[in-house]
Amino acid sequence: MKKNEQSEGYRDEALKLLKKADVEVGDKIRLTREDEVFEGILIPVSEYSDGKHVVIKLKSGYNIGVRITENTRIERTGEGTKPAFTTSELPKQDKTLPKVAIISTGGTIASRVDYRTGAVRPALTASDLYSVVPELVNIAQIDAHVLFSIMSENMTPKHWEKIAETAAQKIAEGADGVVIAHGTDTMGYTAAALSFALQNLPVPVILVGSQRSADRPSSDSATNLIGAATAAAKAPLAEVAVAFHETLSDTTIALHRGTKVRKCHTSRRDTFKSVNASPLATVQDQKVTMLTTDYRKRDSANRLELKPSFDDKVALIKFHPGIDSSLIDWHVEKRYKGIVLEGTGLGHVGKHLYDALKNAVKNDVVVGMASQCVWGRIDMNVYDSGRDLLSLGVIPLEDMLAETALVKLMWIFGQIQSVDETKRLLTTNIAGEFSPRTLPESEPC
Amino acid sequence: MKKNEQSEGYRDEALKLLKKADVEVGDKIRLTREDEVFEGILIPVSEYSDGKHVVIKLKSGYNIGVRITENTRIERTGEGTKPAFTTSELPKQDKTLPKVAIISTGGTIASRVDYRTGAVRPALTASDLYSVVPELVNIAQIDAHVLFSIMSENMTPKHWEKIAETAAQKIAEGADGVVIAHGTDTMGYTAAALSFALQNLPVPVILVGSQRSADRPSSDSATNLIGAATAAAKAPLAEVAVAFHETLSDTTIALHRGTKVRKCHTSRRDTFKSVNASPLATVQDQKVTMLTTDYRKRDSANRLELKPSFDDKVALIKFHPGIDSSLIDWHVEKRYKGIVLEGTGLGHVGKHLYDALKNAVKNDVVVGMASQCVWGRIDMNVYDSGRDLLSLGVIPLEDMLAETALVKLMWIFGQIQSVDETKRLLTTNIAGEFSPRTLPESEPC
Repeated sequence: MKKNEQSEGYRDEALKLLKKADVEVGDKIRLTREDEVFEGILIPVSEYSDGKHVVIKLKSGYNIGVRITENTRIERTGEGTKPAFTTSELPKQDKTLPKVAIISTGGTIASRVDYRTGAVRPALTASDLYSVVPELVNIAQIDAHVLFSIMSENMTPKHWEKIAETAAQKIAEGADGVVIAHGTDTMGYTAAALSFALQNLPVPVILVGSQRSADRPSSDSATNLIGAATAAAKAPLAEVAVAFHETLSDTTIALHRGTKVRKCHTSRRDTFKSVNASPLATVQDQKVTMLTTDYRKRDSANRLELKPSFDDKVALIKFHPGIDSSLIDWHVEKRYKGIVLEGTGLGHVGKHLYDALKNAVKNDVVVGMASQCVWGRIDMNVYDSGRDLLSLGVIPLEDMLAETALVKLMWIFGQIQSVDETKRLLTTNIAGEFSPRTLPESEPC
Repeated sequence: MKKNEQSEGYRDEALKLLKKADVEVGDKIRLTREDEVFEGILIPVSEYSDGKHVVIKLKSGYNIGVRITENTRIERTGEGTKPAFTTSELPKQDKTLPKVAIISTGGTIASRVDYRTGAVRPALTASDLYSVVPELVNIAQIDAHVLFSIMSENMTPKHWEKIAETAAQKIAEGADGVVIAHGTDTMGYTAAALSFALQNLPVPVILVGSQRSADRPSSDSATNLIGAATAAAKAPLAEVAVAFHETLSDTTIALHRGTKVRKCHTSRRDTFKSVNASPLATVQDQKVTMLTTDYRKRDSANRLELKPSFDDKVALIKFHPGIDSSLIDWHVEKRYKGIVLEGTGLGHVGKHLYDALKNAVKNDVVVGMASQCVWGRIDMNVYDSGRDLLSLGVIPLEDMLAETALVKLMWIFGQIQSVDETKRLLTTNIAGEFSPRTLPESEPC
């Protein structure tokens, strides 16, 4: 969301109206249009804007784009708020506390909105962080590092590599735990990527974000960050996990295993869910409670194995009625190395794709099957269609999330090129991506 | 799952071993391999089989494929069960009961497995249905019609058209309600398709399926079918809905609106969930309880508007890190008319797709945005990236399911070709596909 000054973007009708009212981006305005009145702060628009809309940040924190009509009037009602990081000195760090490295990659967490420019200014220093979340000083000695400042929909496998390398470096430098501040949109993908890239961890690596920016009364930034820092400092586990609100209440933060976690709601603060698994732990009042015994223990004797390479020649294809089989052919022609199918139910796709899939496998494309149901386990032995696909060489991916399967296959091809070895690794449990089999009815939904 | 006799498919090593033991498909067998023993009924394998596996239906109802080793031994322990439809006469129909038409399209519901052939034999006649679910005779006068016998992953928009036409015909013939037996895998897509194709319904149209075939002790076939028939006969609503177990218990069947329902678990019996909406009703002890007042009322004066055409030149593309922008270009080159993006979070995709999307819109491809979160509502005014996409012409699809959006766009292009009119219809609430806005935190998750 970071913007530069060139991108305020108003033009044509919108710019004319704003000029007439003598208002600038960042000002408080009142817009009247027929029977409607909108009050808030004028924020910038995209360079792709149509010139016919004005965007206002309402008091609720929501932005609204208002179409200008002939009767639209705008008046300036005041000046916008400036971002409020304190610039005071770093509070005195308590040298007896664990060391936690916070790597910031962007997103809404621990940032403040500058309404004069519409930009979200990330917390760049440990001092900024303490000003946003003063409780941190009682939890850990914080070493803050800004790696990127991007919205997470712009994360790529190349970014995953950098994040993994930076986390490994912080651990080598003696961190007792690592927190990675990250946009929520693709946090699940990055969590899976780090789970495969950072093996045999001695300490926890905790991803954290927020659904509501710190300027909104309902922001979850501080509580999530406190939970993540507590987990990084004290949790007995040494895995990659996501720390986020367990429920709508602010009291408890859940830790989800990096390979089993998924963003399941566009706006709720408890958006992250462990799928086909229990959360690993909860954090409440700066105490960590483990919810399972099946986790990798924190142990400073563990020698981290850093395997940060990813190959993006892997596709995720969601099957649906009417899908064209030539979509599979296209991926083969483009020399994709792997395809994760999001099939239906227990792991099916329409028969009209069989020839294309057969051809893909013949061309050494590794084809795995996950389910678009999201919850539950693939079982391709129940129906003929599943057995047909097994016979064609499609690999059932058990209860692994489709997103995790995609990331895992990208990671495998970053390590090796042998098709047989790829297939073996794809079905081997490397980072808790497969849960033990249970009776189907007892699986969480 | 229906098989013909040519497809028993055993060959090579597997066939040799079976011949040696003198066993045939349908026989009860015991297979011993190293320390393991498998007992069950030999079922056929796919024509694509590798010749190295034997498939056994275990007592639990599950099928297992066993790899043959040098030490594998097989013995015949008995004869398999034949399917057990009674061929007795139709029970006397109570002419005072409502008339319910049951249209069978395939899937596991109301079928029996013939272990001699491995085939699932669908209930073909009203008599078959009564033999599977004798309670039906107390609920309605049943008119059973077999339209297709296919697994639902093989459903296409052409099949949706036929189902819609058949349902309309049954209603024209005087049915007080229609039940459609359907495989669960793509039932959500078909439910959405019928919701758009059957407008201004006078009576309910209820889709039903089962997660466990009738030969398994835990089968949900009968309870789901009774619930669906009850709803078709008595429910006060006149909409397309899916009838399925509300919870793991057999006591209550939930009715989900056709445009808001999604298969959310590969194997659980309560797999169908209403997303961003409450279920419409529950059915318990043959009583229907409405859970909302916001539904279309049953009214025999309503004149059904049948609009069954679909155009499959619409794609569903799930965004993920590392996705190649040329995938969008390919769809434009293939002259796709519409693309539904499953973006991240509130409705985002990486910036590296912007040029391709701009080009798609320029080429009159209608591009809509749904969220891969599944739950929650699109809001593209919160972040710059959302506003950029709006400016590019990407249409936010509110809280509509991605699957429903795909089907709706296929349906719209089946009715009209104008891009402007398409955009208008896509954002107009036609069959309850958009729920009213609520505060984000109060949305179900």
